[in-house]
Amino acid sequence: MFEQRLNRVRTAMAAADVDVLMLSVGPDLPWLIGYEAMPLERLTMLVVTADGRADLVIPQFEVPRVVERPDVFSVVGWSETEDPVAIVADLAGGADRAAIGDHTWSRFLVALQGALPATTWVAAGSITGPLRAVKEAHEVARLSAAAAGVDRVANALQSGEIPLIGRTEADVSAELGRRILAEGHAVVNFAIVAAGENAASPHHHAGSRVIRAGEVVLCDFGGTTEEPEGQPGYCSDITRCVYTGEPPAEFREAYDALQDAQRRAVAAAVVGAPAESVDKVARDRLAEADLDRWFLHRLGHGIGVEAHEDPYLVAGNQDPLDAGNAFSIEPGFYIADRWGARIEDIVVATDDGPRPLNAADHDLAVVEA
Amino acid sequence: MFEQRLNRVRTAMAAADVDVLMLSVGPDLPWLIGYEAMPLERLTMLVVTADGRADLVIPQFEVPRVVERPDVFSVVGWSETEDPVAIVADLAGGADRAAIGDHTWSRFLVALQGALPATTWVAAGSITGPLRAVKEAHEVARLSAAAAGVDRVANALQSGEIPLIGRTEADVSAELGRRILAEGHAVVNFAIVAAGENAASPHHHAGSRVIRAGEVVLCDFGGTTEEPEGQPGYCSDITRCVYTGEPPAEFREAYDALQDAQRRAVAAAVVGAPAESVDKVARDRLAEADLDRWFLHRLGHGIGVEAHEDPYLVAGNQDPLDAGNAFSIEPGFYIADRWGARIEDIVVATDDGPRPLNAADHDLAVVEA
Repeated sequence: MFEQRLNRVRTAMAAADVDVLMLSVGPDLPWLIGYEAMPLERLTMLVVTADGRADLVIPQFEVPRVVERPDVFSVVGWSETEDPVAIVADLAGGADRAAIGDHTWSRFLVALQGALPATTWVAAGSITGPLRAVKEAHEVARLSAAAAGVDRVANALQSGEIPLIGRTEADVSAELGRRILAEGHAVVNFAIVAAGENAASPHHHAGSRVIRAGEVVLCDFGGTTEEPEGQPGYCSDITRCVYTGEPPAEFREAYDALQDAQRRAVAAAVVGAPAESVDKVARDRLAEADLDRWFLHRLGHGIGVEAHEDPYLVAGNQDPLDAGNAFSIEPGFYIADRWGARIEDIVVATDDGPRPLNAADHDLAVVEA
Repeated sequence: MFEQRLNRVRTAMAAADVDVLMLSVGPDLPWLIGYEAMPLERLTMLVVTADGRADLVIPQFEVPRVVERPDVFSVVGWSETEDPVAIVADLAGGADRAAIGDHTWSRFLVALQGALPATTWVAAGSITGPLRAVKEAHEVARLSAAAAGVDRVANALQSGEIPLIGRTEADVSAELGRRILAEGHAVVNFAIVAAGENAASPHHHAGSRVIRAGEVVLCDFGGTTEEPEGQPGYCSDITRCVYTGEPPAEFREAYDALQDAQRRAVAAAVVGAPAESVDKVARDRLAEADLDRWFLHRLGHGIGVEAHEDPYLVAGNQDPLDAGNAFSIEPGFYIADRWGARIEDIVVATDDGPRPLNAADHDLAVVEA
């Protein structure tokens, strides 16, 4: 698997006239060789050259962490008093054009630019993004397992198994986190819990606000799956809303429009559809209910080894959806100081049509006040 | 507090001939204005210019997350179809020399370099690092509270309250994580649990290895403190070793030398001492026991809003310690395929001498087999 990915990367490098690819922290590296760099000041960097070499430059004492794959890459340990930037620059030779990992710390890019003054630089995402966006069958299987895990957490929310009223958002968020881990994830990436007027802030930070009877509770949560050592994990991401008691008619009406907008957008996510057209389907449906001006963000983002990746379902992105693209479909409305709602599923575009990976109930769940 | 920091940053910018400072993800931003950027593809960036402006460019719908401080910085929201790089480049004007946040994603630096082709770039750490390295009194108080929190977790390990034998490293690691959170931390940064031969890998990833009777268990853990919204958290970091049953004489002897090396290094961490001299004190003491060749890493790293920051206690760093520097002192020995040990405290250099923040027992803890 990793060897095939490396071959595809080399083909894309040649097409983009890139002589050397350098990957450090972030999801490209585990996707490509199964190793995740520690996000520390000691540089870990994979150097892939056009001529067929791939060397993982890594602190000597972290070498035991690596699941070695000598047919895919070599390991170059550096000791505490060596300069890893000089080692990387040396491996890169006099590259004309280098691609640097999107998440690589800028301090390392600045240092590399000093060491390689004649090189021009592009973001590695221009090489790896389009490859990662088309999921292999086993990747869809892992995304599906991740989705099933958070679906069970959503079920527990919707059934009232997770108590809400009288607890702080932060407390419920912590419980969601524990349940995400218990459902096959190694890491919790986020667990937004936004009650009442806080639901009007799409990226609300769960805090000390106590959840009361008679309000919406928006929960948006996900993590990265636990995998055998040397294999990258895959991400989950779901949003569901619960009302603590009978919702007012005005909210229910808005929610019904949102639910219909989400359903229509999922149906529109067919292979070949321009990414922005799917966003527009949801936005147009919300406009019918005069809610489009409260839909403050794009419709969705790709998902895989990274929580947000290509393709983005946003106005301006005319790229057609490919078979194997996996992405969120998550329209919402956010009315400042009042309330908000969002419904989110992960969907895979397939030649047989859109395949939603999440199955948790889309209706507005009402729990006893 | 934030206003004073910004003033100090501007003074350092002027001294370094830097016209504009740009901070995104990473610890510089919360240290400077109390806001932590979300590590996502939507750019959040503070732009500080020499002429007195400071603008936080942030996705419009994340604006509600910001604790605003209009006397310190302005907020510039951008909508989903705007280009944040263009907004930042515009704010930067035609800067000759720009400092980019150390952890900023390289994809944004590459894009900014395209938008500002005449600008030369340095890493922002050259400006902020020396300022952050000298802790204010209230910062020492938070580091001390963080240290007291992990001390209590260490006590639970050493007293046998946390069972070890028969459990996997990963299971013990998860329990350490839960206890770290319960002790006033918002985030677990790491919880290394390395049993027997795994203790020979300094950055071992806790895994499925089951802890047995009659072996060393090295535990290195820490997190970032929970703080009121709009205030940055501070990091803890401690290492202690437990033996499951009576240790062999050879291990105890090596451990005693290590303990003495750690104690001597702490005593040597006085204001004015070159950073590398403190490393050498520990290394020389380990040499007396023929263990220096197994001491594979530097002696320590600074700590504050970031787990690893200036100053680094490593051969080659001749900078003298300043009053207010906070750093780890963590010698170790790592004998491949056999065992390893490390003892780590956080210490603050003060005019009254070194002040260790951790108080958990330094002796080798022995728990019942």
